[in-house]
Amino acid sequence: VQNRDKSKPSIQGTIEKALRKILREKIRVIGSGRTDAGVHALAQVANFYTNSKIPLAKLQYGLNSNLPEDVVVTAIERVRQDFHSQFSARSKVYRYTLLNRTYPSPLLRDRVYMVSYPLDLGLMRREAKCLLGEHDFASFCASGSNAKDTVRTIKRIAINKTCPLPLAPCYPALVTIDIEADGFLYNMVRNITGTLVEIGRGNFPKGSMKRILAAKNRRLAGPTAPACGLALVKVRY
Amino acid sequence: VQNRDKSKPSIQGTIEKALRKILREKIRVIGSGRTDAGVHALAQVANFYTNSKIPLAKLQYGLNSNLPEDVVVTAIERVRQDFHSQFSARSKVYRYTLLNRTYPSPLLRDRVYMVSYPLDLGLMRREAKCLLGEHDFASFCASGSNAKDTVRTIKRIAINKTCPLPLAPCYPALVTIDIEADGFLYNMVRNITGTLVEIGRGNFPKGSMKRILAAKNRRLAGPTAPACGLALVKVRY
Repeated sequence: VQNRDKSKPSIQGTIEKALRKILREKIRVIGSGRTDAGVHALAQVANFYTNSKIPLAKLQYGLNSNLPEDVVVTAIERVRQDFHSQFSARSKVYRYTLLNRTYPSPLLRDRVYMVSYPLDLGLMRREAKCLLGEHDFASFCASGSNAKDTVRTIKRIAINKTCPLPLAPCYPALVTIDIEADGFLYNMVRNITGTLVEIGRGNFPKGSMKRILAAKNRRLAGPTAPACGLALVKVRY
Repeated sequence: VQNRDKSKPSIQGTIEKALRKILREKIRVIGSGRTDAGVHALAQVANFYTNSKIPLAKLQYGLNSNLPEDVVVTAIERVRQDFHSQFSARSKVYRYTLLNRTYPSPLLRDRVYMVSYPLDLGLMRREAKCLLGEHDFASFCASGSNAKDTVRTIKRIAINKTCPLPLAPCYPALVTIDIEADGFLYNMVRNITGTLVEIGRGNFPKGSMKRILAAKNRRLAGPTAPACGLALVKVRY
């Protein structure tokens, strides 16, 4: 879980501190990219260099024993020295999870965004198709961003009803939006999601996504969906 | 989510307070039964009597607006006046969720119990079979309990690997133990689970469950699995 709150230590700093304690040398960890405050990371990747000969399983166990309960190292492996978790990445997958019903879920609070209006998933899928491929995604880039190049390539968008959740017999109300791209602009997934929700609710006319994309104007897109529903689920190399 | 901590208001009290505010009369809520501190309730059922003519959808919306974020009313319906959420119940289903891997899950902390040893699920299923039907479950009743009658009927036990979780691409490490019975003794599911984990790890010899059940002696069973992994998932009428 990534939770980059300025008043709290960063995940990176927390891991570096634990590594320093175990390996007894100063370690600089390089992550695959930042995630916003409140966004979850289920599969963040980071690399670092060490002279230590500690067995990897022992290092992983030691790290997890020294990390707070909201940070966990799920796997650890040796890589080539030219591996760079950010620059070697071919694509990333983000998942946005909506709870599409009229009452919240205590067990999933801070993990999903509740949308109480009915959503037309078929319409959302048809409108989302135009986002596939290489485009200038300026319309979905946060206005505060200083990205010079707003061209990215979306490789896949999948909108699904997901069921079941192992902790409950069934949560038919969950809708996931998976987006895989070679890179993401600031708030890009949350802005695309906010736009898709407006479309699914019937607030935007047919063909809106295509028009919004072509306009390269953030003000035409829907609102930014809240951070809590977003998770980095995969980094591909 | 049920979390009966003595220092905090009970779920029942919290709901009664919200009902009183909305209906402007003193309401007594009758739940289907207690759950221990730290145990989750995904489908607790409760009934109450009111003279109010408020539409049910409006009452549900009003309740959820007045309840804290860890309590939610998922459904509300009119019942016959002789309905009693505890005495009318035919059976209850509890689910215990194990995270069977060597590192914890930040997103599922306080929802699962991590067991880092490999578990033989086939052996656990075979050993669990003898629990089906009507038996004296004294061996699985907390020693502090003052239950006079420790005979209960288990209607179903299902041990499964559960995958996927909608918030993650896949959690193949989750194991669920579902137990349906006409009633449960204090800590019964947690004591059966603790015993099944010992069996799955290979710590108890073959036929142990049958011997433990027949002995009617709490000391022969495995340890009490922690509350966090347990959830009431269904009350059947």
